[in-house]
Amino acid sequence: MQETVSANLQLLEEAVNARDGSAVLKAAEYLHYADLAQFQESLLEKEEVSFFAKVLGPRIYADVLAELPEELVEESLFSFGTTEQRELFSHLKDDDKTDILRAVSDDRRVEILSILEKKDKDLVGSLLEYDEETAGGWMTTQVGRIATDMTVKQALESLRKNQESTETISRIFVVDENHILQGKVRLRDLAFSTWDTPIRDIMQIVEHPILATADQEEVSMTMKKYDLMLAAVVDDSNRLLGVVTHDDAMEIAEQESTEDMERIAGLTGEQSESSYLYTTILTHFKRRFLWLFGLALLAVASGYVMLRYENVLSEIYMLALFLPMVIAAGGNTGGQAATMVIRAMALGELTPADSLQVAWKESRLGALLGFSLAVLIFIICITLLPAFRAPVPDSISYVDFALAVSISLGLQVMFSALIGALLPLGARAAKLDPAVIAAPAITTIVDVIGMAIYFTTAQLILSL
Amino acid sequence: MQETVSANLQLLEEAVNARDGSAVLKAAEYLHYADLAQFQESLLEKEEVSFFAKVLGPRIYADVLAELPEELVEESLFSFGTTEQRELFSHLKDDDKTDILRAVSDDRRVEILSILEKKDKDLVGSLLEYDEETAGGWMTTQVGRIATDMTVKQALESLRKNQESTETISRIFVVDENHILQGKVRLRDLAFSTWDTPIRDIMQIVEHPILATADQEEVSMTMKKYDLMLAAVVDDSNRLLGVVTHDDAMEIAEQESTEDMERIAGLTGEQSESSYLYTTILTHFKRRFLWLFGLALLAVASGYVMLRYENVLSEIYMLALFLPMVIAAGGNTGGQAATMVIRAMALGELTPADSLQVAWKESRLGALLGFSLAVLIFIICITLLPAFRAPVPDSISYVDFALAVSISLGLQVMFSALIGALLPLGARAAKLDPAVIAAPAITTIVDVIGMAIYFTTAQLILSL
Repeated sequence: MQETVSANLQLLEEAVNARDGSAVLKAAEYLHYADLAQFQESLLEKEEVSFFAKVLGPRIYADVLAELPEELVEESLFSFGTTEQRELFSHLKDDDKTDILRAVSDDRRVEILSILEKKDKDLVGSLLEYDEETAGGWMTTQVGRIATDMTVKQALESLRKNQESTETISRIFVVDENHILQGKVRLRDLAFSTWDTPIRDIMQIVEHPILATADQEEVSMTMKKYDLMLAAVVDDSNRLLGVVTHDDAMEIAEQESTEDMERIAGLTGEQSESSYLYTTILTHFKRRFLWLFGLALLAVASGYVMLRYENVLSEIYMLALFLPMVIAAGGNTGGQAATMVIRAMALGELTPADSLQVAWKESRLGALLGFSLAVLIFIICITLLPAFRAPVPDSISYVDFALAVSISLGLQVMFSALIGALLPLGARAAKLDPAVIAAPAITTIVDVIGMAIYFTTAQLILSL
Repeated sequence: MQETVSANLQLLEEAVNARDGSAVLKAAEYLHYADLAQFQESLLEKEEVSFFAKVLGPRIYADVLAELPEELVEESLFSFGTTEQRELFSHLKDDDKTDILRAVSDDRRVEILSILEKKDKDLVGSLLEYDEETAGGWMTTQVGRIATDMTVKQALESLRKNQESTETISRIFVVDENHILQGKVRLRDLAFSTWDTPIRDIMQIVEHPILATADQEEVSMTMKKYDLMLAAVVDDSNRLLGVVTHDDAMEIAEQESTEDMERIAGLTGEQSESSYLYTTILTHFKRRFLWLFGLALLAVASGYVMLRYENVLSEIYMLALFLPMVIAAGGNTGGQAATMVIRAMALGELTPADSLQVAWKESRLGALLGFSLAVLIFIICITLLPAFRAPVPDSISYVDFALAVSISLGLQVMFSALIGALLPLGARAAKLDPAVIAAPAITTIVDVIGMAIYFTTAQLILSL
């Protein structure tokens, strides 16, 4: 099957290169619109894009347009003239209509809205009012709706009449005359019930309707928890406004994961919908610079501690050999702990109320990790230092030196595990996104502590 | 709605505390099994768990069991005696049957298999042969199947007869007498076609069947790309074995994201299915220790560079103030770049073939970031150092000192962006998981480079 896709993509490429319209149509016929969109992304010249779009025509191209990355939407849409644009819009699912209008510039949006059919214009206007990252921003209004007082036969007839305009009817929602949500039925219940069965008898309650203003994260988490194929979206009065479908839930979950991952790495701002290569240098710059600059300033604190302990380092310069190790071990431990906790919170496994339990767990774990690392490094030190005749002052034995290094390593790892795990929990308790405490920030903070631990321990054990 | 859930959970808790069976059943009736499972997780005593399970009884409890975290499965299942276990299994979806058998110990698995009904035993035995992380490991065999030569009426009758045993029939698959996949129909097509329509006339081709041996990542990526609600799972001969449903696709995507996130943070091994708090200290230890130890050893390389440049640092000890800053800025830049590239590869946006483009982008971006940081830090240095009368040798001007610090910062950031982006691409090109080059490893590598850059630049500019 995969081979057929590649073969057809090959044919498509040749057809576009030869500007052979009928060959394009023939190859495209066997390709999914997701593949067609991916193909279009590979086209480098504007003129090829416009040829490709026009040959497919507004009806087929509507589905392709909906799959394109945001930054290609405007150019592609304006391959068409006004009449074709209107036709294209009439073939789009309504959540795609809003997505496309959100992807174009303000001027273009006004221009397009002005040419849409009245029905489309009203619908899109009301959908655009919802924030992009809410249930309302993701929903489609194309959903099977039937009335409580219908029979199965009436319901099937009503659905059949509207089937062109409904995106999905595996779940059908039952509403009263004021559009207030009453229940749901499955298509199979209609298909397998006798025609005179009243809908009232076979409908089930909708257990988890979602408010249109709810955050997108709530949508995907609810749908995941309850294995929903569709989530009903309602307003304050429980009026059915639309549904969010399973593929959108998956996209939301993916966006949220990417966002968390990027925040953990110290990237600010909204995740761009554009892919890495399409995002401009300036956008990348903006998302990276602030953290880098802030962390650079923060790191000077470590430098300050190092400056204060000039006497220790100048007396036994050999300590420099293990300084980066102790510092880095703390940062790495903190980063590991923070990532686990942030992810566990994102998956709803942990809340700030669990902080004590987390602290207890990380204390023991940190102690175990710290102790194990300390023992190993101690052994390595006392074995290798004499072998290489490492230059330490005569007054200091290799054993004392190894003790100083390994004890500070152990302490640093212990504290870092605790700090790494508790900072994100603290952020959440303070109603911040836990990932706002990015791993690099934790690393920089524990670096300062590590620097102090290292020199203080050395000072104490080596009695400097 | 959310309030009703909390209220019922409250009632349930009271009922369990009072060991009041009928009150438990009453409260449970209005709760989703996902909520019931979450409730059971909050029970601390074994005896409560067993009371709760027994009161619900094998039929209702089957769905709850399927939602429990792995480590609670065995204990909960063995609240029941043999007869009830057999009944419980007969009510489970078949992918849940295998999941549960995978969650219990080997002995218990044999024990359970021996008491299952023959039909269940054969089915489960064959499903257990697929690796857990493949399409076969996720599929359910409960899918609507009809034959090519049926009419709509015959198809509906056949589906109605089997509706108890099919998990989903929004998509129905058409097979020939050898179970070879011929096509699919939507339930709506059956419901809205006249009864004598031949299935052949309304069936569509199945564009993206997935091999049972395919990796789970392929399953979720295919389902996401093509917005599939169900993926048909086939063997080499295109025989229909089962389907993977949208909720499983979402779970796979979540697992894969968690795995990537954890690898980036330097956690080894399989992501545990248990939640953070349920995972034992020893398991956590195993997943964290190796990287920590390896990175600690690697960090000694930085220490070695620092040792080699003793003369530079001892001449101008003031350089220590900015050493951690330059080192950390490199690590942070590398970590950011690596995370973006790893995520973009996971989402299928980047492949090793794009390496040149990525290198070009990161070179420019790194130069821009490095230059901006360098300029800011230069300004800060020449402003603050004289103000604080920072102790540098008389032979060295503050401007030269600031130049040395900021130029090395700029260079370090530039190189780090490039290295951070290219290492994961290199790993993928070498057929490794790109996240295998965890961010902390990149940090440690660029630390060594940063250390060298810092001291060499200082040496050159300050002519030491």
